[in-house]
Amino acid sequence: MVSPGSPSTPPSLFAAKRYELLTLGDELLLGLTANGHLTFIGAQLGRRGVLLQRNVTITDEADAIARQFRESWAGADVILTTGGLGPTCDDRTREVLAEVLGQRLVFDRGIEQAMEERFAAFGRKMTPNNLKQAYRFERGEVLPNAHGTAPGLWVEQDGKVLCMLPGPPNELQPMFVEQVLPRLAKLGLLLPREAYVQLRTAGIGESALETRLQPVFDRYGAALSVAFCAHQGQVDCRVSSPSEALSSAQLEAVAGECAQLLGEDFMGYGHQSLAKVCADLLRAQEKRLAVAETATGGLLAQSFTEVCGACKFFAGGVVCCSNDSKMQLLDVPECLLLQHGSVSAESAVAMATGAAETLGADYALAVTGFAGAGAAQGTGGNPVGTIFLALHAPHGVWSKKLSYPGPRSTVKIRAVNAALDWLRRELLHAQAGATGPSRPPSLRS
Amino acid sequence: MVSPGSPSTPPSLFAAKRYELLTLGDELLLGLTANGHLTFIGAQLGRRGVLLQRNVTITDEADAIARQFRESWAGADVILTTGGLGPTCDDRTREVLAEVLGQRLVFDRGIEQAMEERFAAFGRKMTPNNLKQAYRFERGEVLPNAHGTAPGLWVEQDGKVLCMLPGPPNELQPMFVEQVLPRLAKLGLLLPREAYVQLRTAGIGESALETRLQPVFDRYGAALSVAFCAHQGQVDCRVSSPSEALSSAQLEAVAGECAQLLGEDFMGYGHQSLAKVCADLLRAQEKRLAVAETATGGLLAQSFTEVCGACKFFAGGVVCCSNDSKMQLLDVPECLLLQHGSVSAESAVAMATGAAETLGADYALAVTGFAGAGAAQGTGGNPVGTIFLALHAPHGVWSKKLSYPGPRSTVKIRAVNAALDWLRRELLHAQAGATGPSRPPSLRS
Repeated sequence: MVSPGSPSTPPSLFAAKRYELLTLGDELLLGLTANGHLTFIGAQLGRRGVLLQRNVTITDEADAIARQFRESWAGADVILTTGGLGPTCDDRTREVLAEVLGQRLVFDRGIEQAMEERFAAFGRKMTPNNLKQAYRFERGEVLPNAHGTAPGLWVEQDGKVLCMLPGPPNELQPMFVEQVLPRLAKLGLLLPREAYVQLRTAGIGESALETRLQPVFDRYGAALSVAFCAHQGQVDCRVSSPSEALSSAQLEAVAGECAQLLGEDFMGYGHQSLAKVCADLLRAQEKRLAVAETATGGLLAQSFTEVCGACKFFAGGVVCCSNDSKMQLLDVPECLLLQHGSVSAESAVAMATGAAETLGADYALAVTGFAGAGAAQGTGGNPVGTIFLALHAPHGVWSKKLSYPGPRSTVKIRAVNAALDWLRRELLHAQAGATGPSRPPSLRS
Repeated sequence: MVSPGSPSTPPSLFAAKRYELLTLGDELLLGLTANGHLTFIGAQLGRRGVLLQRNVTITDEADAIARQFRESWAGADVILTTGGLGPTCDDRTREVLAEVLGQRLVFDRGIEQAMEERFAAFGRKMTPNNLKQAYRFERGEVLPNAHGTAPGLWVEQDGKVLCMLPGPPNELQPMFVEQVLPRLAKLGLLLPREAYVQLRTAGIGESALETRLQPVFDRYGAALSVAFCAHQGQVDCRVSSPSEALSSAQLEAVAGECAQLLGEDFMGYGHQSLAKVCADLLRAQEKRLAVAETATGGLLAQSFTEVCGACKFFAGGVVCCSNDSKMQLLDVPECLLLQHGSVSAESAVAMATGAAETLGADYALAVTGFAGAGAAQGTGGNPVGTIFLALHAPHGVWSKKLSYPGPRSTVKIRAVNAALDWLRRELLHAQAGATGPSRPPSLRS
């Protein structure tokens, strides 16, 4: 829901501000590639006070593109398109949209030059089919592409904006942030605040969360709009005020009340990841972390190395696929593996301790288990989906057993999120000066 | 594009077969969750001869749902909806669509019983708001939900099909495969083959690929439809025949010609990942692989552990974030790190060799470099985006230097894909009985 421009934003050229995103490509409709453009652009706009009203994904067929664009152009104020600007025969967006808008395409020598320079820089020869990308709308502008050949195109017509973006995410994303957002802001089409305030939680279910927060929501009644979104062990709660009955400051106050009520189950505001929250706690306490994984196969290490400047707090990780590698890399005793099995609380603890010692870390997380069908079938009392976590901290080491339904990828993500949340709670306790673990040790011994 | 039913499929009830998917939810439009329903349903239909014609994502607002559904119902033959069937106040799909179709909702005692049993099985008490989910269309059917409370709903009206599916993927996916696909097949709305033949390539750009394959495409003219899809160092090419001028066998022959032309740049047919292709080659040759990573931070290990039965060929991996960890876990000599730096061909080679030796593997891949801004800033001649790969094989070890633009996540994926492709080519050579590397060694020494 877009509010009218506030006095601090430039006066708007537009009466209504209905944003639509058209994502083009059979590969999206065939499920061959995920619609990451919706995720990226939706989030970027949401953080600037705009709720995208619709996303339509259609085939590469010229008739379908023309029909959809005509309908969307009639109803929307800002239309963003992605894809179909490339050099190959199935790239038709530029031509079709120009026809619908009654514009000619004109050859742009500047685009051609930029492409030639790009090919030369990579020591490659430009094939003639690339020249297709050097055409722009006669009454339109070019958004230079620093990361690929096809530039973006910008058209203002009929009191509306059309912005055409290239399909590859590594080209689209910087172009959107560096060129499109400033242009939209200049036209007064963005707000200086998010469309909502988001609270992130971990380790609490959606209905339990709603029940805990209901007393707060009840006090604001219809002025407040609440939505929940669950992600594999994390639940986000968004509060907004579509009617604008509550100001930004009031929404932040509501979120603050909720956070207070939730205590440790509250993970953070906005869009921070669990790994980022752990990273910040580790950095603040000047501690280092190591990880050892079997079932999650690198995903736990990967979640930390995604954080900028990970080397400051992340000592490293080991991915083990055999008992040999656990013995070799983590000094897990062979007799322990033989007696308790590689999927056990004891193995998890030995892996965590081994990782902390080998890598010289203060904290270590270990994950072992059966993530999915395959070579490592669940056995005996440990069916597929069984996960043992271990957490090594300066003052002790603990293990816990978990069980998740679903396919391999789900079990892996749930296990990683559970490990991250455990570390987060432990670091919060350490920060508060507590010395005990966040809950009683569950390691059988 | 859907073809008319062939003699082997039941006669169709429908003249045209236009499929549309409506995905409901602000969380999709705000980029808070990815539209996995499109990926899943699009792929399921594509593998049964159906190209989904459109996917529309709209807000949870009742007016928006009604407006969009009215428009879609007028043009489509099969409409699938996801989300908005749950117990809470923002779940409005059932009520809005019933109104548009002029149907009453009727209470279904069978649904209520199934919900009661489900709550009892989990030892929970059913709250009254759940009863909302026990209503079905007066002239419609119920698709039982084995994994959640909200059942799916099935309506045949005006010679069209409406199928409403619950939002949670773990409920939607089995319902779609076990109930929706058989119903669609019974109505003659699916075909016994894929909508296209897909060739996957690696290590070749999109426009170069098209240029190489153009002679094949030219021979088939308008009978053949060709589309390309680039994924960070991989390009897929789909060939199809929307007019049905070419049979499945002919399309496969076209794809075979293309594969022949491409030689080693051809990676495989269909949907196999690079890691899966490497895994199959390793298993066939009874070889084991280890990995050592800095810049890709676990993503390389993760790509192999996603493959079912990874323990059969994957010995394990090490994620290093410091020189200490390289020395400790991989036996990289300190003097080498000091002399050449940790981001160097020499370090990459020492990491690969160390990983192979420590983990007892025949092959090892190592990745080091500067993936993004942060603690590990690119230095001197190695700016951010510089990657050194090393490949250890039974008959030698090689390194190569690469450079990628873009953000950290892009550099990581490109580096992983380059490493996988290098291994794939090396294993192909080994399979062919060649003993030399796939290209001249590039390690400066």
